[in-house]
Amino acid sequence: MDFTEKLKAATLRNRSLLCVGLDPDPARMPAKTGFADFNRAIIDATADLVCAYKPNLAFYEARGAEGWTALRETVRHVPGDIPVIGDAKRGDIGNTAQAYAGALFEYFGFDAVTANPYLGFDALEPFIRYRDRGVFILCRTSNAGAADFQDLRCEINGDRLPLFEIVAARVSRWNEHGNLGLVVGATCPEELKLIRQKYPEIMLLIPGIGAQGGEVAATVRYGVDRNREKTVINSSRQVLYASRGADFAGAARQAARQLRDQINRYLDDPGAR
Amino acid sequence: MDFTEKLKAATLRNRSLLCVGLDPDPARMPAKTGFADFNRAIIDATADLVCAYKPNLAFYEARGAEGWTALRETVRHVPGDIPVIGDAKRGDIGNTAQAYAGALFEYFGFDAVTANPYLGFDALEPFIRYRDRGVFILCRTSNAGAADFQDLRCEINGDRLPLFEIVAARVSRWNEHGNLGLVVGATCPEELKLIRQKYPEIMLLIPGIGAQGGEVAATVRYGVDRNREKTVINSSRQVLYASRGADFAGAARQAARQLRDQINRYLDDPGAR
Repeated sequence: MDFTEKLKAATLRNRSLLCVGLDPDPARMPAKTGFADFNRAIIDATADLVCAYKPNLAFYEARGAEGWTALRETVRHVPGDIPVIGDAKRGDIGNTAQAYAGALFEYFGFDAVTANPYLGFDALEPFIRYRDRGVFILCRTSNAGAADFQDLRCEINGDRLPLFEIVAARVSRWNEHGNLGLVVGATCPEELKLIRQKYPEIMLLIPGIGAQGGEVAATVRYGVDRNREKTVINSSRQVLYASRGADFAGAARQAARQLRDQINRYLDDPGAR
Repeated sequence: MDFTEKLKAATLRNRSLLCVGLDPDPARMPAKTGFADFNRAIIDATADLVCAYKPNLAFYEARGAEGWTALRETVRHVPGDIPVIGDAKRGDIGNTAQAYAGALFEYFGFDAVTANPYLGFDALEPFIRYRDRGVFILCRTSNAGAADFQDLRCEINGDRLPLFEIVAARVSRWNEHGNLGLVVGATCPEELKLIRQKYPEIMLLIPGIGAQGGEVAATVRYGVDRNREKTVINSSRQVLYASRGADFAGAARQAARQLRDQINRYLDDPGAR
């Protein structure tokens, strides 16, 4: 099944726009627990509550070959009807971009990835070419430094727009197979609103709620598409590290359920608390 | 020794601005040769001819855990007095950027890395903080798609400049420890000239000569700094795949020597052929 269909089905089945970020951090994990075991416990505890999982490759890369093995095991452990988004933010040229696409889609087997737009279309094309996979391109990120370049006003067709809007416009134009999306942080609700209004049909991956300070209410109000099937709201730390004790998986389940339900309450009643 | 000192010493010792990109591609390598063995042979054959080596992580990532092991072995095999630049083009935020910096500088032990500017200063800071390591930030890349975003004219302090120039200006401002550089492709000599004129003292990593079509003459004329110690000119395929036979290492040595000497001839006599 292709990524967009799989995402839609999981969203419906679990009544969930919540994606759990699988970002294992030894400093916050229960003692003596390996990455793969930790992730397996988290996945088993939350698989009926999420629309997707999203491992960020940085945490695995930091452990070298052992981390890579744990990442591959993690992807394999996710039930086949839940999509896995490889948060890699890769961007490179020509044959190098092809090698990254091969690594992410074939070696690891991700259903979707994140990618960086700075190098332009030909650097994204080797990913986009996999029509059954999703590609979320960084648009307006959730960090403070995002403004350094993404908010610069640039000339385009006689108009002037912030760089992140030009990225969104181009990605929308490149989206002929419907497998592209944008990453827009929950920490910038105005930008999120603007992007969702301009591109009501594009997939959005929205990180930054919880630990990073993005609010669920504004994220739901401004970011969710009308059919509620093209929006992925990510939380990592708030779920993974709800407890550091032996009950970490149960605590993660409770945190994921609360977040999913909170998102759903705002969907049904935008004034809810 | 810190990266800039190590680069300068290797450049002087080997009379070389040539960096060899260690990008193993099974389709072009001699049959039945593993990545680590291939790289070891290339390194042994060229270590007195280069100022640096630059493995691009994509090719190793595509082989999973095995690739990671080969990459680590490769870095360890490079003689300690030649710097190794990890061409990773990473860009991520907060604790994730820290994890990448840990992976690249500590797990693999690179002397320098490449990084993507799109996420802004706070995404680069975890790399920059390693003052004894180098960080080359993508400025104007060598691919055709580079123009999609990097050439957009953006407003800055009442002026209008292409995005890549704004990136260069900011990186120059952030370069308080002298460990930052820019990546500017040999395929865009006008942009290279402009950046070197504006920032005569910044380190430049220049990919794209040979297989990508960049010319050595223009690269030397426009890209090299006055003291010839802050310029790294990369070639990958032209050296690695000079022969696919059993003599591949000898052929690589010959190709590296020719390129190094060609660069040096243009340095001494800009009109040379």
